[in-house]
Amino acid sequence: MDNTQLLNLLNTLTIEEKIGQLIQLSGDFFNAGAMAVGPMEKLGITQEIVQLTGSVLNVLGAEKVTTIQRDYMEKSRHKIPLLFMADIVYGYKTVFPIPLALGSSWNPELVKWCNRLTAKEACAAGAHVTFAPMVDVVRDARWGRSMESTGEDTYLNSVFAKAMVEGFQGDFTPGESLASCVKHYAAYGAPEGGRDYNTVDMSERRLREEYLPPYKAAVDAGCELVMTSFNTVDEIPATANQWLMDEVLRQEWGFDGVLITDYAAISELIAHGVAENEKHAARLAMEASVDIDMKTSCYANQLKPLLEDGAISQQKLDEAVLRVLRLKNKLGLFEDPFRGASIAKEQELKESYESKSLSRKAATESLVLLQNSKNTLPLTKATKVALIGPYANSQELNGLWAVYGDKSQVITVKKAFEEIMPSDCFKYTQGCALLESLDGLGDFGFFASEANALNTDEAREAEKNKAIELAKWADVVIFAMGEHTLQSGEAGSRTDLTLPKIQTDFMNEVLPWVKRSVLLLFNGRPLVLTDIKDRVDAILECWFPGTEGGHAIVDLVMGHVNPSGRLTMSFPYTVGQVPVYYNGFNTGRPPKSSTHSLRFTSRYLDSPNEPLYPFGFGLSYHVAEYTNLKLSHANMRAGQEIEATIEVHNTSDVEGEEVVQLYIRDLVGSVVRPIKELRGFQKIHLLPGETKQISFKITEELLKFHTKSMRYEAEPGYFEVYIGNSSDSDICARFRLE
Amino acid sequence: MDNTQLLNLLNTLTIEEKIGQLIQLSGDFFNAGAMAVGPMEKLGITQEIVQLTGSVLNVLGAEKVTTIQRDYMEKSRHKIPLLFMADIVYGYKTVFPIPLALGSSWNPELVKWCNRLTAKEACAAGAHVTFAPMVDVVRDARWGRSMESTGEDTYLNSVFAKAMVEGFQGDFTPGESLASCVKHYAAYGAPEGGRDYNTVDMSERRLREEYLPPYKAAVDAGCELVMTSFNTVDEIPATANQWLMDEVLRQEWGFDGVLITDYAAISELIAHGVAENEKHAARLAMEASVDIDMKTSCYANQLKPLLEDGAISQQKLDEAVLRVLRLKNKLGLFEDPFRGASIAKEQELKESYESKSLSRKAATESLVLLQNSKNTLPLTKATKVALIGPYANSQELNGLWAVYGDKSQVITVKKAFEEIMPSDCFKYTQGCALLESLDGLGDFGFFASEANALNTDEAREAEKNKAIELAKWADVVIFAMGEHTLQSGEAGSRTDLTLPKIQTDFMNEVLPWVKRSVLLLFNGRPLVLTDIKDRVDAILECWFPGTEGGHAIVDLVMGHVNPSGRLTMSFPYTVGQVPVYYNGFNTGRPPKSSTHSLRFTSRYLDSPNEPLYPFGFGLSYHVAEYTNLKLSHANMRAGQEIEATIEVHNTSDVEGEEVVQLYIRDLVGSVVRPIKELRGFQKIHLLPGETKQISFKITEELLKFHTKSMRYEAEPGYFEVYIGNSSDSDICARFRLE
Repeated sequence: MDNTQLLNLLNTLTIEEKIGQLIQLSGDFFNAGAMAVGPMEKLGITQEIVQLTGSVLNVLGAEKVTTIQRDYMEKSRHKIPLLFMADIVYGYKTVFPIPLALGSSWNPELVKWCNRLTAKEACAAGAHVTFAPMVDVVRDARWGRSMESTGEDTYLNSVFAKAMVEGFQGDFTPGESLASCVKHYAAYGAPEGGRDYNTVDMSERRLREEYLPPYKAAVDAGCELVMTSFNTVDEIPATANQWLMDEVLRQEWGFDGVLITDYAAISELIAHGVAENEKHAARLAMEASVDIDMKTSCYANQLKPLLEDGAISQQKLDEAVLRVLRLKNKLGLFEDPFRGASIAKEQELKESYESKSLSRKAATESLVLLQNSKNTLPLTKATKVALIGPYANSQELNGLWAVYGDKSQVITVKKAFEEIMPSDCFKYTQGCALLESLDGLGDFGFFASEANALNTDEAREAEKNKAIELAKWADVVIFAMGEHTLQSGEAGSRTDLTLPKIQTDFMNEVLPWVKRSVLLLFNGRPLVLTDIKDRVDAILECWFPGTEGGHAIVDLVMGHVNPSGRLTMSFPYTVGQVPVYYNGFNTGRPPKSSTHSLRFTSRYLDSPNEPLYPFGFGLSYHVAEYTNLKLSHANMRAGQEIEATIEVHNTSDVEGEEVVQLYIRDLVGSVVRPIKELRGFQKIHLLPGETKQISFKITEELLKFHTKSMRYEAEPGYFEVYIGNSSDSDICARFRLE
Repeated sequence: MDNTQLLNLLNTLTIEEKIGQLIQLSGDFFNAGAMAVGPMEKLGITQEIVQLTGSVLNVLGAEKVTTIQRDYMEKSRHKIPLLFMADIVYGYKTVFPIPLALGSSWNPELVKWCNRLTAKEACAAGAHVTFAPMVDVVRDARWGRSMESTGEDTYLNSVFAKAMVEGFQGDFTPGESLASCVKHYAAYGAPEGGRDYNTVDMSERRLREEYLPPYKAAVDAGCELVMTSFNTVDEIPATANQWLMDEVLRQEWGFDGVLITDYAAISELIAHGVAENEKHAARLAMEASVDIDMKTSCYANQLKPLLEDGAISQQKLDEAVLRVLRLKNKLGLFEDPFRGASIAKEQELKESYESKSLSRKAATESLVLLQNSKNTLPLTKATKVALIGPYANSQELNGLWAVYGDKSQVITVKKAFEEIMPSDCFKYTQGCALLESLDGLGDFGFFASEANALNTDEAREAEKNKAIELAKWADVVIFAMGEHTLQSGEAGSRTDLTLPKIQTDFMNEVLPWVKRSVLLLFNGRPLVLTDIKDRVDAILECWFPGTEGGHAIVDLVMGHVNPSGRLTMSFPYTVGQVPVYYNGFNTGRPPKSSTHSLRFTSRYLDSPNEPLYPFGFGLSYHVAEYTNLKLSHANMRAGQEIEATIEVHNTSDVEGEEVVQLYIRDLVGSVVRPIKELRGFQKIHLLPGETKQISFKITEELLKFHTKSMRYEAEPGYFEVYIGNSSDSDICARFRLE
């Protein structure tokens, strides 16, 4: 349809039909023909409203979607198809590593292809819109949704935001693309105390400088939808925040797509204490230009009375409806309401080699080698390996938000080892439980999984003894340990960031018998590894690696692939140090350069200021030297650019990938400036002994920030350029912007 | 002098003489006649500048001050006396409890008298200005300077700010009053990660609503000086923050007094990265209307060149100098440069009964009984008591910032027990060291004290065995444990908030032999007591109680005084929970009332949201019941007030004090509102069995806040009124503002 046709269609709609387009209900309202009564009554939704509803949440599967759509269209007067939206964040049936892991790949092109493939799979299952990417900057590992973000850095998250949106949306070809919904706008990743849904408070300067850019990058990449966050911004919940939504998002950034709430966020305005009741809540959300009400009855029951009162205008309503219709049109739903949903295609894609190999590649690039004493890794096939731990033979490698992931396809670590190891060189036992119990983790419905508890004292004792036996036998013990899936993800906030005690106690008992040890870690956030790191030889951070996790891990452990992952979130030295991140301000009393005595500098008495493992850090089996950093000019005039060049030399006889990272520091500003900021990176391949010259262009654009007067511009003065393999690299050159 | 005379004086001054008035140097520059050369050269200060300097930092003692002043005046052309300023925060020679303890008294009148007495003592020693009160709101116990604040609450800190300023300044009678300098403007108590001097970032709304009011209360109470803080506000260091200093402090609040930097803060603008050099730093500070440069050479060496360049105006300089001259005049220094400095008076006050008894009273009101299982406390004289621990016989009870405190006068716990206990009922041993070592605590010069280490393994073993012997003998073991003085205070930031491990290990060894246990805690911040609390019977939080600490503690332990202290800062359940405080926002998903399942509410998986001990909490030996909360009206019209009344009934046969606390909650606002806010309190005395009716007037003023549009006003709607003995009281009534 063209714009005129859409407007004509809009004009044929009744008030009720218009409002319907702004309502999103979940699948239980659409019982494939027979309307479910229970949830309707609970939510105060009538059957009439269900029949007018414009979009559906989290119902997928070609058969189901097709049936619901057909049934809906048959009964529908206005013949506007339903929009099917779902949480397809890092894979559909084929699951990729969690986003925090994907971020560690520093390979946006790869991630784009993961999303393209996900879009294909999900399209066949009838999806139209995915609630992804999640681009929230997060600096506090207590927050469970750290796992869904690419990490702590504004620049890196912006790069991934663009890649992810482009991956999902492509050129909107039906059957191969999803409309993308960036979330959670804004600053959801900065809840106070790391507690999910908690208050977010920061200066507008920090918001604009550090938290907003990734959302804007997604919008600039053409992202069709934006989701409001649960938190407050400037003490006003995002969903009711006119400044944030209307002024910044729509007017400043020119976003003209669909703005949808997070789950039930409009009715939560009442709990927040900014709305007296649902009517008031609906009015605030409309005033903030929120288009779709996900899963509450506020818009359904209150918009009409608000229109009748004149509290919201017909025009405001029409604008919102038009945005929804435009999205449906862009997706081609008016031409084909079933848009690529295909049982045959679903089957065909289910076990595709392409998916599996991409998932495996993504995982090998996402895992991060944190420690490798005595060159413990890689192993050889002649090594006698004992694999021990609750994650050793577990298919729970998808992480919490792989809502549709096919767990039965997950390759366990054990299986992957068995595929390649001679049977006389490989033994396995579970060794210990994942957790004492699932108490406190909350009811999670279909996400629920086992604690892998060994139920009796006898079973525990027997497993421990078996583990000790294996340890005595083995050359290397591989411990597969980690957080329970339910310990991270939404509402998975922890105050203690160490491994579960039952696991460390177990390791304490077994380690005395171990010759060499490798720790495989499965977790959805940075953990505190300060105690454990000195007691094992090697640590491989595996995150939740997805469907092909086992294969990818064995690829790295055996040296078939050289690890190249680099952290995108700092690993704290202790939880008492959070938030800890690489790009803070210098303060007036930096310990390393203050003229004051050490006591009177900005430091902790009982911990370093620095994290245990910094942003950008990761080991490989090769060793690269960075030398000869040069700038093409010592001065930059407005509009000019400087080329920064460094030589990267692989001094080893192993080929591998380096993530060459460019950081810039603005030495003096009208406001304080970070001690360094990522401003570019290149993932390069080095043959044994090879040296490459790597260049970055430094433009004035890269030097801009929100100055004292809140203008976004570069200020003259000196800048330091750092290029290295981590945020703590100190190879530095300096230039002056005139 | 009158204003005209002051202006005339100003006009007689040379540029150099004017600049001199804006310089503050420390005592080492004024070697009582003979100028010290070392520090001058280091700072780049010439002898000419020393002779023109307007004020002196931290030199006290009548003889020294008098000599320096006489020498200075003799050599001075302009005959403007030196101003002597010093850190006299919670006592001079006689030390009162640390401010976090004084806050726990909920007795501002008492604290006013403490400061009045301090002013007398310090005046005799030649002081003119004290760098107090410190009124920074603090919600993060990691921050070492928690000890110098009255705690986490904006309202309470404001009440204490007023009382403290009035206490120091009185009516400016020479010999009895000090000019007061409120600090640290602004928001110094909110450093990121609880790390001293670190970045502060928050919305302007939070700043104005939660952090600024205590400073304003001090200014409104007539405070003569304000000190700039080290931190950034809106990413601009306070000392260079024109908006904060000139717009808010001077223009909005009408502050016309002297604005002084914290120690070396102007030169730290270079480390902050907002100034290129000392000249630039001096210009920024002048532009922010900072009058006195404490302890750098920026003003001394750079103001003249800046004037010559026209970068700062003669008028700006004159205004600053005039403010300093007015302060000197207000203090009466032109009439008497020695203003109350008197060796005889110093001696007379040194051991005054008045000081000691006030210090003792302040301490008894400041200590907080946190736990008292099995009515373990109070003890009787017939109880066999073993006193054990590194604080049992320690005079280190003054805390870190009692700069001039006379440690030799401190009454130890042991001494106080020995004064009243029959010798066959009381035994003592140190038991264990305070710390393993002082490593990491930093060089603190004259503040340094011992780790109380038991130096050999034999000594440790012997002490432990002796402790076990005493435990077997005693009816009650009193453990006197805590943080080392150097673990809190300035730059005393900790990531671990538990008792030192050497102490808890020791207690673990002794506790199995103990019949009843009392834990006396000495510390400068809320500690994490979650593990220890279940292993002892009673806990008395003693903070750093000052000169009469031992007496006060024994007064409470023996029941001579009934404990009445109530916490003014939440005690975290775990450090992973910080910041934790009572008056947060409800969020959209409060665990207690959300319609979502528990998992999807704002909570931690592994810790309660609530602190272990909340704001306002504290036990007494009596028990009071709160009943029959009534409001005089169900509705409030503009300008009207409501009277809230409650009955408080002492159900026990012990007389005691109750801190009756009034909290208000605004249920719906144009921005989110705290779940409750302290808006009044009364400390009342109850005889055994007595019932008192307590009333609070609720005015519209108490309901005001910074609304969405940043106006400070009350919004119509419902309010809840809570009256009880702690912030977690749920006795509630409701009214409506029309």
